[in-house]
Amino acid sequence: MKTIRWGIIGAGRIASTFAAALKSMEYTKLTAIASRDLTRAEEFAERFQIKKAYGSYEELARDPAIDVVYIATPHTEHKMNSALCLTNKKAVLCEKPLTINYAETEYLMSLAKKQNVFLMEAMWTKFLPVTAVVKSWLAEKKIGELRHIRSSFGYSAAFDGSSRIYNPDTAGGALLDVGVYPIAYVVYLLEELPEQVVSSAVIGRSHVDEQNVISLRFPGGILADISSAVSADTGNDALIIGDRGRIFVPNFWKADKVERYDTNGQLVETYYLPHKKNGYEYEAEEVNRCLREGETESDTHPLSSTLEVMKIMDQIRGQWGLKYPQEEN
Amino acid sequence: MKTIRWGIIGAGRIASTFAAALKSMEYTKLTAIASRDLTRAEEFAERFQIKKAYGSYEELARDPAIDVVYIATPHTEHKMNSALCLTNKKAVLCEKPLTINYAETEYLMSLAKKQNVFLMEAMWTKFLPVTAVVKSWLAEKKIGELRHIRSSFGYSAAFDGSSRIYNPDTAGGALLDVGVYPIAYVVYLLEELPEQVVSSAVIGRSHVDEQNVISLRFPGGILADISSAVSADTGNDALIIGDRGRIFVPNFWKADKVERYDTNGQLVETYYLPHKKNGYEYEAEEVNRCLREGETESDTHPLSSTLEVMKIMDQIRGQWGLKYPQEEN
Repeated sequence: MKTIRWGIIGAGRIASTFAAALKSMEYTKLTAIASRDLTRAEEFAERFQIKKAYGSYEELARDPAIDVVYIATPHTEHKMNSALCLTNKKAVLCEKPLTINYAETEYLMSLAKKQNVFLMEAMWTKFLPVTAVVKSWLAEKKIGELRHIRSSFGYSAAFDGSSRIYNPDTAGGALLDVGVYPIAYVVYLLEELPEQVVSSAVIGRSHVDEQNVISLRFPGGILADISSAVSADTGNDALIIGDRGRIFVPNFWKADKVERYDTNGQLVETYYLPHKKNGYEYEAEEVNRCLREGETESDTHPLSSTLEVMKIMDQIRGQWGLKYPQEEN
Repeated sequence: MKTIRWGIIGAGRIASTFAAALKSMEYTKLTAIASRDLTRAEEFAERFQIKKAYGSYEELARDPAIDVVYIATPHTEHKMNSALCLTNKKAVLCEKPLTINYAETEYLMSLAKKQNVFLMEAMWTKFLPVTAVVKSWLAEKKIGELRHIRSSFGYSAAFDGSSRIYNPDTAGGALLDVGVYPIAYVVYLLEELPEQVVSSAVIGRSHVDEQNVISLRFPGGILADISSAVSADTGNDALIIGDRGRIFVPNFWKADKVERYDTNGQLVETYYLPHKKNGYEYEAEEVNRCLREGETESDTHPLSSTLEVMKIMDQIRGQWGLKYPQEEN
């Protein structure tokens, strides 16, 4: 088995989590870390026993000893950082959301295609074993005909004008930070696009969406009731309701457990599989597999899926009149 | 204490439940039952040991031995039945929704005012002791600043074109049947009106809303995520989220229990009070009190509150393009 050699751009919290996953995997080498702050890169390298620490993203992107780069910078840098890697013929796994809008995703898609290089958004939820179980239960009609999905992703961070999540310049707000999860999840489970999108948001003094409610109506009469928040602990669960029962996925975005209930509310089936490491290993394994097999996209999370969700998110922000400063002409 | 003498119009399931509540109360007499089907009225009278059974609503409305009439007919008959009683100077407690739209509620309000007779919608949830506890916990800021409320009222009834809930002629659909509960609840808890209402619905072959999602945005940055359904068991709970904790009300519409959680998800406080009978006794007691004290409206659920919720529901139906046949010109 060919060992896949990884680099990481950005040395923050999510980079640490992902590095831990990579370090737990076989035939997987974490070769380099880059931060604009060399000291930070060196500290990160020491912590995870990584050979190379770079003080610039360019150096890492040009390193011939790297196959694929995991991009763990803020959303607003994803386009630039991904383009840098793709231009240098490096495969890219970029944190969600891939970009801040549809146009940026289109740009990266065409660049990846032109370069014939692998590109994927790190929508790790899609690669969790529990997510596959949910998909199979739905396909087997274990809850009968699907009718309604309710899912939220919200957390409560005190207002802080200097935090990226409350800052329009870093494309802060709930939708891009966490709302992307339930939207992508619902579209993935239903395997179709909504025919109607309605939404509302609280745009506070931050000038970004501090909380929102989104309803997606799908052909065939299925409604999804979605919410996300950075100012309210609205939960992180998914409740999938059919005419013959319900599926409950606690912490759906990182789930290791799923429960099925009958129409009387009785628990009838549980699936539980502890993550091998922290759950990020599944998407990393998919990237490794794609690279070994010479694929430039993942079937499970192709770029067209990212683009579809971006289109929905652009539409939602249009309903709120929310543009990030870098989108203003 | 003056005994209040009740009559009931309509001999269906909800009439039975309410009759059981009345029979459990002191200084309260259930004097008469009316159904268009005299045999049905007589059976009901025998079951609840009621002295008089009428085969027409008119006879009951004219009976001088009755102080107040509980109207338990389908929504579409509420206006006519309430008007009949008010015209005959009978106080009225009418099942929810009071009417099918704003205009009908306005009509009944002005008739009640003209006749100087008590009129109230039977929004019993507002009179539950648990609801008062929730209000007091919010007033005491036990969960800090209120941010988000999520509430659903859904049940799953198989499609049946002959059922009132799937029939436009009887103003069927989720919004009027059960959606009225979470809307009225949220407006009551917040003591203000939404500044924005957005919604979506699945209008099936029934031509009424089989399920819906409604978002209400309130001044001060509070979002309510509401759903209701007659085709999906979306639950009946209310989750009230503040920046210092959450209040969870299982079966909020008929609640006898409420739980408070801290920001770590730990249960910190529970209030539980079994209903004296079935929960309907609290609204009946309020009607008795109002009549004894000569009030024509309840402070807890005045007609202006009913009208406000009707306005919201009309607005929501406007978003769906849903009119009942009797509203067409």
